[in-house]
Amino acid sequence: MTRKYLIDQIQQKKTYLCVGLDTDLAKIPKHLQSHPDAIFEFNKEIIDATKDLCVSYKINTAFYEAMGLKGWEAMQKTVDYIPAEHFTIADAKRGDIGNTSSQYAKAFFEVLNFDAITVAPYMGEDSVRPFLEYENKWTIVLGLTSNKGSDDFQKLLVTNKSEQDLPVVPGIIDPYRPAFLYQRVIETIAGWGTPGNLMFVTGATKAADFATIRNMIPDHFLLVPGVGAQGGSLSEVSKYGLNKDCGLLVNASRAIIYASEKEDFAVEARAIAEQYQVEMSGFL
Amino acid sequence: MTRKYLIDQIQQKKTYLCVGLDTDLAKIPKHLQSHPDAIFEFNKEIIDATKDLCVSYKINTAFYEAMGLKGWEAMQKTVDYIPAEHFTIADAKRGDIGNTSSQYAKAFFEVLNFDAITVAPYMGEDSVRPFLEYENKWTIVLGLTSNKGSDDFQKLLVTNKSEQDLPVVPGIIDPYRPAFLYQRVIETIAGWGTPGNLMFVTGATKAADFATIRNMIPDHFLLVPGVGAQGGSLSEVSKYGLNKDCGLLVNASRAIIYASEKEDFAVEARAIAEQYQVEMSGFL
Repeated sequence: MTRKYLIDQIQQKKTYLCVGLDTDLAKIPKHLQSHPDAIFEFNKEIIDATKDLCVSYKINTAFYEAMGLKGWEAMQKTVDYIPAEHFTIADAKRGDIGNTSSQYAKAFFEVLNFDAITVAPYMGEDSVRPFLEYENKWTIVLGLTSNKGSDDFQKLLVTNKSEQDLPVVPGIIDPYRPAFLYQRVIETIAGWGTPGNLMFVTGATKAADFATIRNMIPDHFLLVPGVGAQGGSLSEVSKYGLNKDCGLLVNASRAIIYASEKEDFAVEARAIAEQYQVEMSGFL
Repeated sequence: MTRKYLIDQIQQKKTYLCVGLDTDLAKIPKHLQSHPDAIFEFNKEIIDATKDLCVSYKINTAFYEAMGLKGWEAMQKTVDYIPAEHFTIADAKRGDIGNTSSQYAKAFFEVLNFDAITVAPYMGEDSVRPFLEYENKWTIVLGLTSNKGSDDFQKLLVTNKSEQDLPVVPGIIDPYRPAFLYQRVIETIAGWGTPGNLMFVTGATKAADFATIRNMIPDHFLLVPGVGAQGGSLSEVSKYGLNKDCGLLVNASRAIIYASEKEDFAVEARAIAEQYQVEMSGFL
């Protein structure tokens, strides 16, 4: 999917909502649990009920892998079922040496045909590059995540490099300026792609950090998890995160898909998604 | 698998070799490529030919995911086929917020029944803890990797923290001492587990860093990729990495499994594995 198409969708539908399909057999309504294709049936109803209110679906691969072969099959069927106008994200947090990252890119961009994949930055440039090589596909690198443990390393203060110079992005990086690791990660990786193929995960529970990040990367889309069950505020995120093209995809998973445990789960999911859409429409 | 059992296996077999099953349909011998179960058949022959020469097999999940459902099935069959006395590693480099990491742990420790999984550290403590909760299962965290991009972030100089204090491991961490990020990662995460459930990935192409790492974590096992195709030296790695219990698992993938492109591939794979075993036997 191109950047222009995504922005057009956001403007037409007046929403930047991403619905997270973190589908867990133990948490879906009882009447579906015994269905031979329970996960896909659940996802199908959620998609049907929310597709006009969101521009993106995010599949959290862990929940599917935890069900083995059957889960992998449900993931394939789900991504095939999502309408083509939606931006599909494999929330897989992959990353490995070059020849291995190429295999992950093949798995998620060719075999499963997702539009985007989330990628972990720790292994550096050759672990990220293979994802960026696909035309009209997107690499969404972890910048600042929304969990408690994000402080452990992402907020370490980094000074300079001793073994090699930093790849300097003119006007952005001063390698001798102390910065948090997550800032150095975002600034460095921004130099490897463009706002047309690269986004960053930015945790919604850290709205105060949004201004800093927006200053570093004014044009990039930010994928924002953590609104809803994780406690982030949509208005704070929108205040600091929106740019002239929107530039935000805000994800809610549990708050939407588990809005009800009963047979009316899809209706209730739609009601919550609609609340987000209405609120987003006001911010756009 | 317990630490004692692994050490006993190493002593009995006089080897600390891990064979990496990075099996790629395009690279296996022509006569197997059209087999309906090509990947598993290839792995089976490699395992039969090398099992007395190694203590561990490492499955690089990317290569299996790149084949979709069929690949996931081949991974399941392969891990089931590996003899119980071998330490099985899912080289998956997973890591996510707590509830998602729990799903990855379930996928690889329960559904696929691996002994160990490799984990990326960027998201911090709650992304690693769920893996450590399984008895007799192992978490192998990325410390210093073997690829070129490892310099990009792992070798950034880290000074102190501004938002919270570091979890101080007595005698190890001085939060005001500048260190490379990878050192801070290893020191910090060493405090979350024990040498009985935690290992670190340490790239073989950086033998000079081994002395530093051994000084920080004298008792932990190190998983060493990068020997063979990636250019690491077994004698350097062994010189700096071995401890009183061995403390090393040295992986070779391409150098062994692709030793020959012909029908004799298993015989040639054995010959290379035997060279490693003989060399290792001398170092033990």
